[in-house]
Amino acid sequence: MNFKLLIQYDGTDFHGWQIQNELRTVQGELTQALSIIEGREVNVHGSGRTDAGVHAEGQVASVSLERMITVNKLRAAINGNVGKDVRVLQVDEVDEDFHARYSAVSKTYIYRVVNGPAISPFWVRYAYHDARDMDASEVFLGKHDWTAFSAAQSDVEDRVRTITKLHVTETVDSRARGRLIEIEAGADGFLRYMVRAVAGTLMAVGRGELDDEMIRRAIENGVRPTEAVTAPACGLTLMNVEY
Amino acid sequence: MNFKLLIQYDGTDFHGWQIQNELRTVQGELTQALSIIEGREVNVHGSGRTDAGVHAEGQVASVSLERMITVNKLRAAINGNVGKDVRVLQVDEVDEDFHARYSAVSKTYIYRVVNGPAISPFWVRYAYHDARDMDASEVFLGKHDWTAFSAAQSDVEDRVRTITKLHVTETVDSRARGRLIEIEAGADGFLRYMVRAVAGTLMAVGRGELDDEMIRRAIENGVRPTEAVTAPACGLTLMNVEY
Repeated sequence: MNFKLLIQYDGTDFHGWQIQNELRTVQGELTQALSIIEGREVNVHGSGRTDAGVHAEGQVASVSLERMITVNKLRAAINGNVGKDVRVLQVDEVDEDFHARYSAVSKTYIYRVVNGPAISPFWVRYAYHDARDMDASEVFLGKHDWTAFSAAQSDVEDRVRTITKLHVTETVDSRARGRLIEIEAGADGFLRYMVRAVAGTLMAVGRGELDDEMIRRAIENGVRPTEAVTAPACGLTLMNVEY
Repeated sequence: MNFKLLIQYDGTDFHGWQIQNELRTVQGELTQALSIIEGREVNVHGSGRTDAGVHAEGQVASVSLERMITVNKLRAAINGNVGKDVRVLQVDEVDEDFHARYSAVSKTYIYRVVNGPAISPFWVRYAYHDARDMDASEVFLGKHDWTAFSAAQSDVEDRVRTITKLHVTETVDSRARGRLIEIEAGADGFLRYMVRAVAGTLMAVGRGELDDEMIRRAIENGVRPTEAVTAPACGLTLMNVEY
């Protein structure tokens, strides 16, 4: 049977999603738990990697098991064998041809910034703190080559991605007792570090260090302005994967 | 000058509020930071103790300093000398006779319960997880002797406290992707373990193990039913202190 898992994790204490020898990773921890349940080594496919320190409120993975087990028992069995900072919220049985990565159509991330003099201990693991004044911009919307805004070492040939959604919202968060800025980005796919580069650039625009025209030129030329730093991992959360 | 501090802390890694030798406590950490700033040992007065593992979104403390310093510089100086799981959000200069404990008029706590098959990693530090079905109850309102609902070893003589507010709300939390129950309790004061005993009792009522009449008798007789266990510390947060 083929299963689809809806997964949340607090990325703080993980070396990212992808399985690595000796290091604690989300895929590694899930693979270990599922291999115990199945009684042999299994492959757990995620919708995509998240980097060290990045969180997920809605990561999706798929796994094929020979063992007969109900979805609720499978969820409980996995959760009983992984740390409390990763949790399977839901398990569904899916068609044999479902694959968490290849079947994915689009993804949504949120980059969170607490903008004020001090960051609440309830946000310090999940948001980036910037005390400087900040404003909103949505200059990135549309289909572009994102060379300037992805990892320099990225080995993907085709760097064209379409950002379909880019919302910047500002709320007064009651728990933080302060200003919370959320940069929500949706696309058919993201290159490595792309959301964090977009978020870092939007923050530079928001602080008045860059303007929209400079960004448009950077996208065309494939050269990122030095003011546009890649924002820290802790602020980033994978929200949803659409199929 | 006398200062009032608005403080938040994630209680997970603290042995409670009150200063203790060798153990990491919130009062201990603030005292150390403020003594460095003042250049001599100072006394930091909290509105009251919170137990190990209990959180605060709105704890208040007062401290009297001889050093001349602006409120914003004082906030920054304290935050630079304490862990990231405790944060001073605001500092105000107050009258010499203000005392965080003696001037307090009332307090509000919230006890949080995630009610569903699995608890999100984003709530696991801040809420108690109960997978069993649960309903609401508001039997505790009013002025009562809380002997049955406080710590057995409590040495306070007068155990009469007036609960002025007791709301149980159920919401679907988007981050947890599930049901979040919040038990909000306001009173002129709380005895040790009182909120957690009230929360544990309400949960037993919600699960159908106790009824309102049994609770009324328990309050009158001063004997707590065995079903009414003290709820775990992690679910409790001090929200506000009113002056």
